[in-house]
Amino acid sequence: MPKPIVGIVMGSDSDLGIMKQALELLEQMEIPYEVSICSAHRTPDRALEYAKAARGRDLRVIIAAAGLAAHLPGVLAAATTLPVIGVPMASGALRGVDALYSIAQMPPGIPVGSVGIDGAKNAALLAAAIVSTFDEAVAATLNRFRSEQASSVQAKHDRLQSVGYQEYLAGGKQPS
Amino acid sequence: MPKPIVGIVMGSDSDLGIMKQALELLEQMEIPYEVSICSAHRTPDRALEYAKAARGRDLRVIIAAAGLAAHLPGVLAAATTLPVIGVPMASGALRGVDALYSIAQMPPGIPVGSVGIDGAKNAALLAAAIVSTFDEAVAATLNRFRSEQASSVQAKHDRLQSVGYQEYLAGGKQPS
Amino acid sequence: MPKPIVGIVMGSDSDLGIMKQALELLEQMEIPYEVSICSAHRTPDRALEYAKAARGRDLRVIIAAAGLAAHLPGVLAAATTLPVIGVPMASGALRGVDALYSIAQMPPGIPVGSVGIDGAKNAALLAAAIVSTFDEAVAATLNRFRSEQASSVQAKHDRLQSVGYQEYLAGGKQPS
Amino acid sequence: MPKPIVGIVMGSDSDLGIMKQALELLEQMEIPYEVSICSAHRTPDRALEYAKAARGRDLRVIIAAAGLAAHLPGVLAAATTLPVIGVPMASGALRGVDALYSIAQMPPGIPVGSVGIDGAKNAALLAAAIVSTFDEAVAATLNRFRSEQASSVQAKHDRLQSVGYQEYLAGGKQPS
Amino acid sequence: MPKPIVGIVMGSDSDLGIMKQALELLEQMEIPYEVSICSAHRTPDRALEYAKAARGRDLRVIIAAAGLAAHLPGVLAAATTLPVIGVPMASGALRGVDALYSIAQMPPGIPVGSVGIDGAKNAALLAAAIVSTFDEAVAATLNRFRSEQASSVQAKHDRLQSVGYQEYLAGGKQPS
Amino acid sequence: MPKPIVGIVMGSDSDLGIMKQALELLEQMEIPYEVSICSAHRTPDRALEYAKAARGRDLRVIIAAAGLAAHLPGVLAAATTLPVIGVPMASGALRGVDALYSIAQMPPGIPVGSVGIDGAKNAALLAAAIVSTFDEAVAATLNRFRSEQASSVQAKHDRLQSVGYQEYLAGGKQPS
Amino acid sequence: MPKPIVGIVMGSDSDLGIMKQALELLEQMEIPYEVSICSAHRTPDRALEYAKAARGRDLRVIIAAAGLAAHLPGVLAAATTLPVIGVPMASGALRGVDALYSIAQMPPGIPVGSVGIDGAKNAALLAAAIVSTFDEAVAATLNRFRSEQASSVQAKHDRLQSVGYQEYLAGGKQPS
Amino acid sequence: MPKPIVGIVMGSDSDLGIMKQALELLEQMEIPYEVSICSAHRTPDRALEYAKAARGRDLRVIIAAAGLAAHLPGVLAAATTLPVIGVPMASGALRGVDALYSIAQMPPGIPVGSVGIDGAKNAALLAAAIVSTFDEAVAATLNRFRSEQASSVQAKHDRLQSVGYQEYLAGGKQPS
Repeated sequence: MPKPIVGIVMGSDSDLGIMKQALELLEQMEIPYEVSICSAHRTPDRALEYAKAARGRDLRVIIAAAGLAAHLPGVLAAATTLPVIGVPMASGALRGVDALYSIAQMPPGIPVGSVGIDGAKNAALLAAAIVSTFDEAVAATLNRFRSEQASSVQAKHDRLQSVGYQEYLAGGKQPS
Repeated sequence: MPKPIVGIVMGSDSDLGIMKQALELLEQMEIPYEVSICSAHRTPDRALEYAKAARGRDLRVIIAAAGLAAHLPGVLAAATTLPVIGVPMASGALRGVDALYSIAQMPPGIPVGSVGIDGAKNAALLAAAIVSTFDEAVAATLNRFRSEQASSVQAKHDRLQSVGYQEYLAGGKQPS
Repeated sequence: MPKPIVGIVMGSDSDLGIMKQALELLEQMEIPYEVSICSAHRTPDRALEYAKAARGRDLRVIIAAAGLAAHLPGVLAAATTLPVIGVPMASGALRGVDALYSIAQMPPGIPVGSVGIDGAKNAALLAAAIVSTFDEAVAATLNRFRSEQASSVQAKHDRLQSVGYQEYLAGGKQPS
Repeated sequence: MPKPIVGIVMGSDSDLGIMKQALELLEQMEIPYEVSICSAHRTPDRALEYAKAARGRDLRVIIAAAGLAAHLPGVLAAATTLPVIGVPMASGALRGVDALYSIAQMPPGIPVGSVGIDGAKNAALLAAAIVSTFDEAVAATLNRFRSEQASSVQAKHDRLQSVGYQEYLAGGKQPS
Repeated sequence: MPKPIVGIVMGSDSDLGIMKQALELLEQMEIPYEVSICSAHRTPDRALEYAKAARGRDLRVIIAAAGLAAHLPGVLAAATTLPVIGVPMASGALRGVDALYSIAQMPPGIPVGSVGIDGAKNAALLAAAIVSTFDEAVAATLNRFRSEQASSVQAKHDRLQSVGYQEYLAGGKQPS
Repeated sequence: MPKPIVGIVMGSDSDLGIMKQALELLEQMEIPYEVSICSAHRTPDRALEYAKAARGRDLRVIIAAAGLAAHLPGVLAAATTLPVIGVPMASGALRGVDALYSIAQMPPGIPVGSVGIDGAKNAALLAAAIVSTFDEAVAATLNRFRSEQASSVQAKHDRLQSVGYQEYLAGGKQPS
Repeated sequence: MPKPIVGIVMGSDSDLGIMKQALELLEQMEIPYEVSICSAHRTPDRALEYAKAARGRDLRVIIAAAGLAAHLPGVLAAATTLPVIGVPMASGALRGVDALYSIAQMPPGIPVGSVGIDGAKNAALLAAAIVSTFDEAVAATLNRFRSEQASSVQAKHDRLQSVGYQEYLAGGKQPS
Repeated sequence: MPKPIVGIVMGSDSDLGIMKQALELLEQMEIPYEVSICSAHRTPDRALEYAKAARGRDLRVIIAAAGLAAHLPGVLAAATTLPVIGVPMASGALRGVDALYSIAQMPPGIPVGSVGIDGAKNAALLAAAIVSTFDEAVAATLNRFRSEQASSVQAKHDRLQSVGYQEYLAGGKQPS
């Protein structure tokens, strides 16, 4: 089994329902990954150790998901120079705007790249894009993914033209 | 010189201009304190060590100020069971609403008590209130502070009655 | 039965469904508390009397929960020098952002420490942290609580490693 | 000198610079008023007493201005059944959105009517409208005020037509 | 049947489900009212005529409810010098924050007093407070209402003390 | 079949449930339209080509609907000088405030006219208004639409007067 | 002198400083326009009359600018079926987010197309785009404008390449 | 001169004042870059071509800065599978919250990693982190940068201890 190059870390197992979209996409792209539950607040030492060891363990990218005050991506980024992608979760009364600010508004010196709220799929795609900078196979996979994605939009367009909007809606939304 | 019982930590020396209000108030109340510059992101190990050692060094309260993503209060709270007071700073384009969310919206399990944006003075008063739970002298000082504060409002009211609003405004705002 | 040292005040009995998390946690930590329903607006005299009498009755911390304009924590803080912890409730159309601002943005001179929206559990933990500044037994309890909390996160991590994410999700979220 | 029927209360003398617009407008309309500095937080007893005594002292309307957490209008409304008009002040980092929420989002049972942020002039006009429900002279004054206001807009329109926009701008904005 | 002195206007019949709280309260207080559906946008002439005729028809207060861009209160206020109370409705994706801004942030010269989002009950209470400035019977009714409201909070408090929070919650929330 | 003069473009078929309100209204007004699914991000070339060809194909107005970052209206507007109407969709955790900003806050030089969140019906009406600037039949249709709309509000008002609010509510909301 | 086909209406002459960008652009494009100061609140009758007469006077588009509660565009749109473009002004403490919501969030049935905050230039461009649907000369002018705009960006790019960023910045920003 | 591997694109030359921080940092790290001015809206074809050609020209990362509706990062990401880092600029009345939403809230399928508002420096550091995944020299440089950054914070801390806060503030903030 190949060594993981993407490390996915969640602050809580309640994030897994959303984050599985990232796991599935990495699998589909055959990018080896590992997944951890590790809280910046409840297990701070382990979070720090994870990030410090990451480059030495040959990880290339870290994806960190957290809701509410959402410190996990920044805390990991503070202890590694690998690229860290943050995923703000829409948990809580503020629906993720708190997490988005906590992840994106990092102070100068420690970078985190934030995707959108609940953006698990885009986090995996951004990780794949980073991997594609040194792995041509992944670059090719990403290009195929994009083509298929465009074709899928086109197919929906074509179906709408052929059946009309009423039947399209009656038939329900097609799987994306 | 008495041992500090309040530890004030700032993520950046740019916070000192606001945070000096806290230092001055603790001095005025004769509560021994220490002040540190220590960033959750730029010096993560030192932040963790500071918080872990705090109770053993006989600190009783930690005040942590930070702007933007403002992880410092939460990161310290994760490594100590002492009460942590967070002060969101109004730095940056979002004027502190990012810092307020990053400080107040902590996940269940690790508490931080947030004062208002740029609320350095109230952070010191809340620290004093906590100290007053075990130190009657500070309780007495706080009660005096409150009385004087009420008198100061009353004095402004009285002056407004006697001089009228036009002269009051012409004379400028009195020192609070 | 021991005298209460934490006073929990709610502006409305509709807050009790959330605030019971605070009651349960204080019970679990064996910190004696009392609970009141007392509105800053509907029973202003009683609110003022409660806060004025609090220190004399040997309370050490007040937790006040309110939604919407959420004046209760500030109104209590205005009449006592004990530490006051505010809990903004997510009631109403604005989902608690109104309550968070009304609680956190106190003017200089009267401090309130705000936890997050619906942050009943953290309010109890912050109260316990304050109690721990003068009660070593509570300090020890808090440290145990933290260790168990970290172990619980670790246990989830371990389970995720052993069963994989699909079975983990199929098995439902484990009790926290 | 006629007995005041409008009571204007400010939480801080720093609000006077804005609130003088209300004083000036009431003077212009010959509605007798009084002005107080009285803080919901720094002088809570006096705030409560003021509101409780207001109807007995023949006040008919209370205007209360406050910034930040802005509890003053609600605290006064809690202790009187007279109409209370709240004026959120744009002080602080959040530029008055905190004060607007703290004033407008009152819980059911205790009403406050909020004008806009820094809306001192409209607070005075709303007070005058309330007075006009029982005082025909004020109703007549208000109608005149409205006509003059409309004429002033019309005069600006006419001047713009006659001089063109470049000269209009070069001549500076006319006094409103 | 007595002539109405409060005019309640709704921009849409979809507001009636919330606004009936205002109707019920005015009935309970025996304040004669009328209710209209009249849109600032869909029936602009009728809105203007309604407001222009209001004082001549002996109305004393207008309550106007609207959601989204919520121009109705301001449009009515532009055509009358009677006091206008605005009620922002929580309809639409922004949950009423749009309506709150559209109602509260009136330009200088035309006042509207805004209650909170979906604040139908407080709008009726504020109308009653305005009526109470010239009608002592309503003043007495309002005072009774306040006492009963305080007693109701006290009764809940007492019940909580006697049955404990678990049974209180099991019994469900009592009718307010 | 007449050539379409309004082009409706959606970024995703998940927008069709809301956007069908626009299709129905254009049909009702007998304004020929076409509908496409075309994503600014997933099919960028096709989006650009669509906009570039639009005027040559005798389209007169483009309506573009998108949620989240909602670049579609701006991307189309960048490649045509026809009027582009943007419809922010309330999809996602931020409920459309992200889409509203992404659509309305276009930089100087490339205009988009934004309707409200989920404002499909108003987008169609604004398109019709634009068509009415050169097509008198549509102008007449729009005037009839407005009259009927006003009558419908009046009819609801009349029904409310005749049956009273309790029966009105019991009867359910009438179709608009 | 040609008859105006675009009517620009401002709620206050304080908007003219921003709105002159629209006037200048329409002049540059040789689209005849007229400009009025007319407040939805201070001169409601005139606003209604203006909008009602607009189509009969052969106006084709209305641009309406307003700040704060910003009802003017909606009030005009309520009384005409011509296309109305709203320009939210950044006046006041909320910096135009209030005006944006008040303009964009129109209820179904009365459309307004909102440009961005202080978006005077884009309002003129959108008006020109609407005019271009029936006037080929304006369509040609708009296409030229776009080409020149693209060339201007390209010229800046080229200058940056040739002088480098330090000299570019030292030379100041070039006129756009 | 080495071939650029980071492409920095700005929507307007007004962004250069902030973005030069990114240029300086990449120079300091000896990472070859190129800089372009290219607008998603004013030069859409060139934007698309730039992104399509990027990988073929051996760029590895794109940094895109934009304010207001801020479509540039998303538009570039739509046409390349390279990693795209977005930098929301604080231009305009909304101070960058519009740009943050427009950049971060990308729909599933096309990823952008957003740094904070005006986060030019962090964008360069994140680009460097991505480069470090395949270039060990850059990894080493980044580690040195982090150490120096930590030392700089420590030096400020030490200076504060030795001179005290009053002299520290009097001496001004040291260069970071």
